[in-house]
Amino acid sequence: MKRKVDLMFTDRLIERIISMKNHSIVGIDPSYSIIPQFLKDKYIGDNGGSIESISEMLYVFSIEIIDHIYDIVPAVKPQIAFFERYGSAGLKIFEKVCSYAKEKGLLVIADIKRGDIGSTCEAYAEYYLSNATGSLDCDAITINPYLGRDSINPFVEKCIDNDKGLFILVKTSNKSSIDIQDLISEQKRIYEHVAGIVSSLGEDFKGEKGYSPIGAVVGGTFKEEGEKLRQLMKNCYCLVPGFGAQGGVASDLPGYFNEDGLGAVINSSRGIIGAYLQDKYRHDYDEKSYGTAARMAAISMRDEINKCLREEGKMAW
Amino acid sequence: MKRKVDLMFTDRLIERIISMKNHSIVGIDPSYSIIPQFLKDKYIGDNGGSIESISEMLYVFSIEIIDHIYDIVPAVKPQIAFFERYGSAGLKIFEKVCSYAKEKGLLVIADIKRGDIGSTCEAYAEYYLSNATGSLDCDAITINPYLGRDSINPFVEKCIDNDKGLFILVKTSNKSSIDIQDLISEQKRIYEHVAGIVSSLGEDFKGEKGYSPIGAVVGGTFKEEGEKLRQLMKNCYCLVPGFGAQGGVASDLPGYFNEDGLGAVINSSRGIIGAYLQDKYRHDYDEKSYGTAARMAAISMRDEINKCLREEGKMAW
Repeated sequence: MKRKVDLMFTDRLIERIISMKNHSIVGIDPSYSIIPQFLKDKYIGDNGGSIESISEMLYVFSIEIIDHIYDIVPAVKPQIAFFERYGSAGLKIFEKVCSYAKEKGLLVIADIKRGDIGSTCEAYAEYYLSNATGSLDCDAITINPYLGRDSINPFVEKCIDNDKGLFILVKTSNKSSIDIQDLISEQKRIYEHVAGIVSSLGEDFKGEKGYSPIGAVVGGTFKEEGEKLRQLMKNCYCLVPGFGAQGGVASDLPGYFNEDGLGAVINSSRGIIGAYLQDKYRHDYDEKSYGTAARMAAISMRDEINKCLREEGKMAW
Repeated sequence: MKRKVDLMFTDRLIERIISMKNHSIVGIDPSYSIIPQFLKDKYIGDNGGSIESISEMLYVFSIEIIDHIYDIVPAVKPQIAFFERYGSAGLKIFEKVCSYAKEKGLLVIADIKRGDIGSTCEAYAEYYLSNATGSLDCDAITINPYLGRDSINPFVEKCIDNDKGLFILVKTSNKSSIDIQDLISEQKRIYEHVAGIVSSLGEDFKGEKGYSPIGAVVGGTFKEEGEKLRQLMKNCYCLVPGFGAQGGVASDLPGYFNEDGLGAVINSSRGIIGAYLQDKYRHDYDEKSYGTAARMAAISMRDEINKCLREEGKMAW
């Protein structure tokens, strides 16, 4: 395959972060409970709805969110599970949502967390990280490292060939991430071992700003771990989930950034797309205004994070 | 959701194993390189083929394999990546292949290796392990444990509610599985820690034969580890990949079984569905007879494993 002469993924990401003055991204996680009732009434009704009709509802919901945030956030992170929930019909909508976000100029990080033996990962990588006909319209994906280096390599190769990005799970935002990721081996946590792999995989491929397209997922719910991992993976971009609904707060986040004010994107899903359900917004925005409420929440998140970074002197612009 | 009064997954599996006198299962992994040339000529041709046409090819190939083995093997393990490679069109075929295998009486273990935070895994579990409209027609799935217990629980709950099965990655068959899985913490390998979780999750839910529906993936390429894990997870069924193309041999396998001659199913993918490419079969079977070659290879694998189990006195019938 011909190597495209586009900018490296991390340079494209940083360009958008700086032009929008925004380090936060929006997770498109259309779980059943977050869809406004008026959409459920229309697309599901009393008889349960067909899979196609429910999938169409996910599309309408996701598009409305994208229309309200595409000009203020650098990227979206659609979570495939909430589409895959409806099988092939849902995946078709996932593909359409990713393409729509790309058309609007957003970078798309497909949250898929795949991982398998090497020959199998080649098949995943062909769909998620190539530019071949029928491949997904996205810029980066998340993957799971439990199977080790030979399971990660096919993804890395495709990233380098096609200017895509990779975020490898290092320390996840959920409580039980301690079960395996925090076990100690040779005086290091398992997530530190994984961080070592992630860091080494990217060291030969740095973009104009010094960041590799091989990044890490580091949960925003563990401040100390985040700061430690920032030091262990200086040249890696970190995708930081867990802000908002999962408990992550802006004041914990500056440690996830390097001194250049770069190195992390902070994701919020439910906190943005379900803003219309929150006390803070529901008095001003009814459920039909869920898009506008999401925009207000995205602006608020952007400003909160920027304020905390400014206080720490970590400014990229 | 109402609990169905079917037999537990492991009891259904054991019933078929004993009635067919076969501990081996067939992995449906239709990678590009394994598809016979005459099918590529027909469905892809000179112009690359449409995604729909290529997906149709996967269907034709998979159905032919199933038609030739459904009466001699207890289960198939379709690998979703080789279908997902073609996006929603490919996933539609994956759904059709799973349904077809079920119609033929096979148990279906969908090899998906998913894993995410709890709320996201609920969405996956709804598609893969429920009996709701639009859910996948399968009996069991594989999942990845890197995110810990709260990421596994939604799958366990759905298994118990709907008589489905789960195989959690413990020690995988690939070489790099040592990178993370073999690290030592508190005098135990990481895979032993995971085995402890798997074993504890299933201990309250044993079927008629004493086996829990919460099982483990244990690679057939690491004999000593397999024997150790057998002892650590007495009541768990092990799904053992790696036989054949990945290097696993029958004489290494008896240690993966309990004294009752049960406790493991051995998977071969390329070794069976690509048998027509092997020296052993290609003189007698041309590429159009790939189904028959697969059947011959499946019989040979069944007999080899049974012979080794008989020699060790581990007979379930």
